[in-house]
Amino acid sequence: MFDEIKQAAEFLATHDRIRLLCHLSPDGDTLGGAFAIFYALTSIGKQCCVECGDPLPQKFQYMYPNQVDDFEPEHNVTIDVADIGLLSDAQQKLKFSLCIDHHERNNIPAKYKCVDSEAAAVCELVYLVLKHMGVSFNKKIVDCLYTGICTDTGCFKFSNVSSKTHEIAAELMDLGADAYNINFKMFTQKSIARLELERLVIENLEYFYDSKCTIVFVTDDMMKLAGADESTFDGIASIAVCPEGVEVGITVKEKGLNEYKASVRTNSFVDASKFCGYFGGGGHKRAAGFKICGDRQTIKNEILDRLKKEMFC
Amino acid sequence: MFDEIKQAAEFLATHDRIRLLCHLSPDGDTLGGAFAIFYALTSIGKQCCVECGDPLPQKFQYMYPNQVDDFEPEHNVTIDVADIGLLSDAQQKLKFSLCIDHHERNNIPAKYKCVDSEAAAVCELVYLVLKHMGVSFNKKIVDCLYTGICTDTGCFKFSNVSSKTHEIAAELMDLGADAYNINFKMFTQKSIARLELERLVIENLEYFYDSKCTIVFVTDDMMKLAGADESTFDGIASIAVCPEGVEVGITVKEKGLNEYKASVRTNSFVDASKFCGYFGGGGHKRAAGFKICGDRQTIKNEILDRLKKEMFC
Repeated sequence: MFDEIKQAAEFLATHDRIRLLCHLSPDGDTLGGAFAIFYALTSIGKQCCVECGDPLPQKFQYMYPNQVDDFEPEHNVTIDVADIGLLSDAQQKLKFSLCIDHHERNNIPAKYKCVDSEAAAVCELVYLVLKHMGVSFNKKIVDCLYTGICTDTGCFKFSNVSSKTHEIAAELMDLGADAYNINFKMFTQKSIARLELERLVIENLEYFYDSKCTIVFVTDDMMKLAGADESTFDGIASIAVCPEGVEVGITVKEKGLNEYKASVRTNSFVDASKFCGYFGGGGHKRAAGFKICGDRQTIKNEILDRLKKEMFC
Repeated sequence: MFDEIKQAAEFLATHDRIRLLCHLSPDGDTLGGAFAIFYALTSIGKQCCVECGDPLPQKFQYMYPNQVDDFEPEHNVTIDVADIGLLSDAQQKLKFSLCIDHHERNNIPAKYKCVDSEAAAVCELVYLVLKHMGVSFNKKIVDCLYTGICTDTGCFKFSNVSSKTHEIAAELMDLGADAYNINFKMFTQKSIARLELERLVIENLEYFYDSKCTIVFVTDDMMKLAGADESTFDGIASIAVCPEGVEVGITVKEKGLNEYKASVRTNSFVDASKFCGYFGGGGHKRAAGFKICGDRQTIKNEILDRLKKEMFC
């Protein structure tokens, strides 16, 4: 990876007027990585902007700059964007100079690619790139990088965390990252709507097959009752799989009249991606999803039938 | 601290028949520290045992050895025990050779003291001691040490975390600590009773003073309804303070007929210890408690009156 890191650093150091592109449904890692580079480049007088096809979530407000310069970008750099479809239609037509990413598969047709799926967060890579550039790390930069790392690892809990992740976290803290307050905002504090939605999900969780599987429907009525919007729902799917002994937890979210999106989470042996593939969906081994139409009872029966085959045959 | 670490390492290296003492209501740090030393000493042929005045929680089962040798201990070493009152009555009468701890105040009358309140967990210190001894770290040792660090830091979220904490976590992972599975057991997985209790707490949370304060009573009936025992309640008090905008969250747990224990958590400016002091209790700035008698409505009114004075006067 050293060559790719070096190449990315050299590209950023020797070019100006850079547009940094984040993926749709932006999370802490794509935003943290992009804004870290933004602050690093603007601090040395370069023109640079961050763009995202979706609105920037309020949650990450502390990372956003007060204003963005008005200039014509010349070079496009994608941050944490695995698939070209994760850019807006207009962005998809751009030419890409550099792509920094940590996903296993990456199809961005960029001139230079700095992709390492061993990195827990793209911010690990961005940190190494900026370090190689000899950037003087200010508080904004390290807070952005720390945000990417802690959010993409569930605060150092997920299986993607390596000793390297902790080493970088240590260096960022030494450089002044406000780890405590960032983690407080990201993991401790919850909106009242979020708490209410969690309560309703626990209340409506149904256990099947000797409590090895759970299914919960999250209806529009429940969302309304909780005062929740779509961003409140983010991460809710993990509740269904957290009760002790549960192997598969399925959260089925209402998306329209008789239209649902199922999020499947598994703990150790059921391949969520394979399971969802049966319904025309896909994803990762432990987290995947699919769309399904019908009334609730029929959907529940179909899922339970398939679960039985997957788990006990 | 280097001298204290060296002294502790030399003591353990040059003595045998050691009894390691954990504090009452044992947590992952006191147990992790004690069992890490146990595995280190027994692996080099020394006799050693771990003792605790309370039963060892099922939750930490994976740290416990299959059997403990039957021998007469000669030296007593306390691990993470800040106060002599946190040992059983019989243990309090012992002579203490060494005390390893990370609390701000420590009153164990030990011959050698290795106390550093800068350490986020006693396991940080135990790691440095074992490293200084030149211990060959096996998987059991590193899993115990990682457990102490992740549990005492809320998985690297609390304000006690330093860059040193992350550096040690990185070294433990390189030595084979099973971070993912430990964090899964400690933070992701929940008993059904725990989930139900969380649901009931959210349901019964009352908001006061422009939603800056919350109070929730956890009654015996709620505990029964959830199927919860005392160990299930551990950490529940943090729910009351997690809604956005809440400064003080108070969880009042029924302890007997008209007897209650209040746990006070604060976010940024109310001194929980001072607040609880008014009711004859105490603790830390952000987490403290007190006992209170009376009927629920009277208790609620008393707390609300005091809160008003504390927050708005």
